[in-house]
Amino acid sequence: MEQIIWKCILQIRNTSPLVHNITNYVVMNNTANAVLAVGASPIMAHAHAEIDDMVAICQSVVINIGTLDEYWVSSMIQAAQKANQLQKPWILDPVGSGATPYRDTVLEQLLLLRPTVIRGNASEILALAKNNKATTKGVDSTVQSNEAVSAAHFLNQQFGSIVCISGETDIIVSDQQTICVHNGSTMMTKVTGLGCSASAVIGAYIAGIENKLDAVVAATSLFSISGEIAAKQAAGTGSLQVLLLDKLYNITQEEIQQHIRMEVKNAE
Amino acid sequence: MEQIIWKCILQIRNTSPLVHNITNYVVMNNTANAVLAVGASPIMAHAHAEIDDMVAICQSVVINIGTLDEYWVSSMIQAAQKANQLQKPWILDPVGSGATPYRDTVLEQLLLLRPTVIRGNASEILALAKNNKATTKGVDSTVQSNEAVSAAHFLNQQFGSIVCISGETDIIVSDQQTICVHNGSTMMTKVTGLGCSASAVIGAYIAGIENKLDAVVAATSLFSISGEIAAKQAAGTGSLQVLLLDKLYNITQEEIQQHIRMEVKNAE
Amino acid sequence: MEQIIWKCILQIRNTSPLVHNITNYVVMNNTANAVLAVGASPIMAHAHAEIDDMVAICQSVVINIGTLDEYWVSSMIQAAQKANQLQKPWILDPVGSGATPYRDTVLEQLLLLRPTVIRGNASEILALAKNNKATTKGVDSTVQSNEAVSAAHFLNQQFGSIVCISGETDIIVSDQQTICVHNGSTMMTKVTGLGCSASAVIGAYIAGIENKLDAVVAATSLFSISGEIAAKQAAGTGSLQVLLLDKLYNITQEEIQQHIRMEVKNAE
Repeated sequence: MEQIIWKCILQIRNTSPLVHNITNYVVMNNTANAVLAVGASPIMAHAHAEIDDMVAICQSVVINIGTLDEYWVSSMIQAAQKANQLQKPWILDPVGSGATPYRDTVLEQLLLLRPTVIRGNASEILALAKNNKATTKGVDSTVQSNEAVSAAHFLNQQFGSIVCISGETDIIVSDQQTICVHNGSTMMTKVTGLGCSASAVIGAYIAGIENKLDAVVAATSLFSISGEIAAKQAAGTGSLQVLLLDKLYNITQEEIQQHIRMEVKNAE
Repeated sequence: MEQIIWKCILQIRNTSPLVHNITNYVVMNNTANAVLAVGASPIMAHAHAEIDDMVAICQSVVINIGTLDEYWVSSMIQAAQKANQLQKPWILDPVGSGATPYRDTVLEQLLLLRPTVIRGNASEILALAKNNKATTKGVDSTVQSNEAVSAAHFLNQQFGSIVCISGETDIIVSDQQTICVHNGSTMMTKVTGLGCSASAVIGAYIAGIENKLDAVVAATSLFSISGEIAAKQAAGTGSLQVLLLDKLYNITQEEIQQHIRMEVKNAE
Repeated sequence: MEQIIWKCILQIRNTSPLVHNITNYVVMNNTANAVLAVGASPIMAHAHAEIDDMVAICQSVVINIGTLDEYWVSSMIQAAQKANQLQKPWILDPVGSGATPYRDTVLEQLLLLRPTVIRGNASEILALAKNNKATTKGVDSTVQSNEAVSAAHFLNQQFGSIVCISGETDIIVSDQQTICVHNGSTMMTKVTGLGCSASAVIGAYIAGIENKLDAVVAATSLFSISGEIAAKQAAGTGSLQVLLLDKLYNITQEEIQQHIRMEVKNAE
């Protein structure tokens, strides 16, 4: 797996795919910098008059509902529809799923457009599945992470999306495999928008890599390992953000090999 | 007083209150990071369809008019009204008060909703009071900081708000006490949005601490002392921003005790 | 020339001109910090109800179309018109020129308002000229940078603007001179919005310096030399951003003299 991850990292650095982001105000700068640091090129545009043209020149789309409003929701739906029409991959980051009825209604619409990838934390993935009629049951529902994995399987089956649950362990659920990435650092939860940046980096990887599961696993590993290395050197959350961008930019094959802790389970 | 401040710092770190921010585009990232660094949790949301729901799940609201427009002003008024209805504290940051008639009109409306706290620099607090019919008179009007303190007293009497005037000395005015915090660094004025971040941190503290004056004093001291320590190590304004977040995150009781310079005057 | 550049740097530090920015969401924080670091004062405001008042109290305007939409385009046109009416200089940053028909239509309107300065990369300047009917011909069209210089001359002749083409070499084209600044670092292209920050710094310099060509040359040199020095120390793109702000803030006359590499050609 390290071989595949490193190959993906080099491929993005060498091909520099163009990624169209419709994301939230809080994280636009950081996510653009994360996309640039891994070697890809971000575009941020939301005007209805140019969404179709922007999707057409990009290789993927990132949709993040963090600071949504009526205008931006229309932009998001238009972009997802255009991406589907042009058979380009897109990722949904359902920020704050479950927090308000408005978010849940918007997310229902976006899910029906079948995102290639969904990335969120456990509570967002759970809320997304519950709101879209998953019945979680049995032993699973007593254990948060197992419950979220069930929710991810449900979303995968219903909408065909690869689902990435971010957390102390990142769990990637596809119809074939469930992959656990045991990297990262709890300090990462104290910097705003690192989940959003992870989504944007996944967006860059699905833009440039044919096998979408490889792309998600590589991007997630790269991001969590970089965060882990950065957190070890960081005096606090300010320097963590700086060191994370540095590491996304200059990580080596040796660092990947040294830090990676991953488990792969094939679907039963 | 150091005891109270440190107790407040620990309480926010331990309880991690949820703070709803309707703030300006320039500082969203930094203020979210400042709120996270002190241990609280920021939410940023402005869609009319979800304002009420967001206020309901948060423990306080921060309203900052920096990059206001018609839509966002409605969001701000709606959030302040909902906060009042649910008896949740909220803070107003009157960015650019006095700069344009539009800002002054908007601020008049927001003041009538009686913010729990107002934080601005001396010229903003002065403009706010003048625009709302304070008559400043006598010796005071020749000295900018004294004039601003008079303006703060007026605002406190008219609208019941605790008023924090940021500057070389931060001055906190309530109906019972006037407290001067002699910490900080002039280099802080060369980083965008540190005043806005101070407001957001105060927003986090009034969310989690019952005594609102203690909360404002603790948040202001924490912020100014952290900035002072960071500025001493900073090579320039870029590193100041990074070091400030680090210090907000990892400040110790010893550092508070060592640096605090405060005066308390009881109301006559 | 070093003498003029250093005089300009000191003049901005000493006079701290006020700059009105209507810019994109991605870079608002960074560009505000860049403007502050060089000693000027940024204002960011876009509400139609206050555009005229803001232009009136500022010494220049920066218009950057990065994340444009209908509302913001109206703000931009209103600000440019007001700046012209009050004879205040303004700079246009045509982000993504040529990427979509919508951008090109908006840029046509803005060009007719005759910006004092235009700053973009070679492909943006080329697209801007092509869209506005420049015919590039002969040997030039086979060489990208020469082609861009021709485009810059066309824009200068048609709209009276000083044109700054950013790139490995920054090329500044006026009706009298063409000036090449051979500073900078390729790592700068991997941090989002450094071009936008360069535009904002030029905006600060045309606000405070009478001779507009001197202002553009000084701002461009300052920015590229600061970036070059910062890149040498940077471990990656995260620290580059921090070190660049530090250097914009604390650069010395010696550092300017030591690093400057410039060529001046008078118009034939």
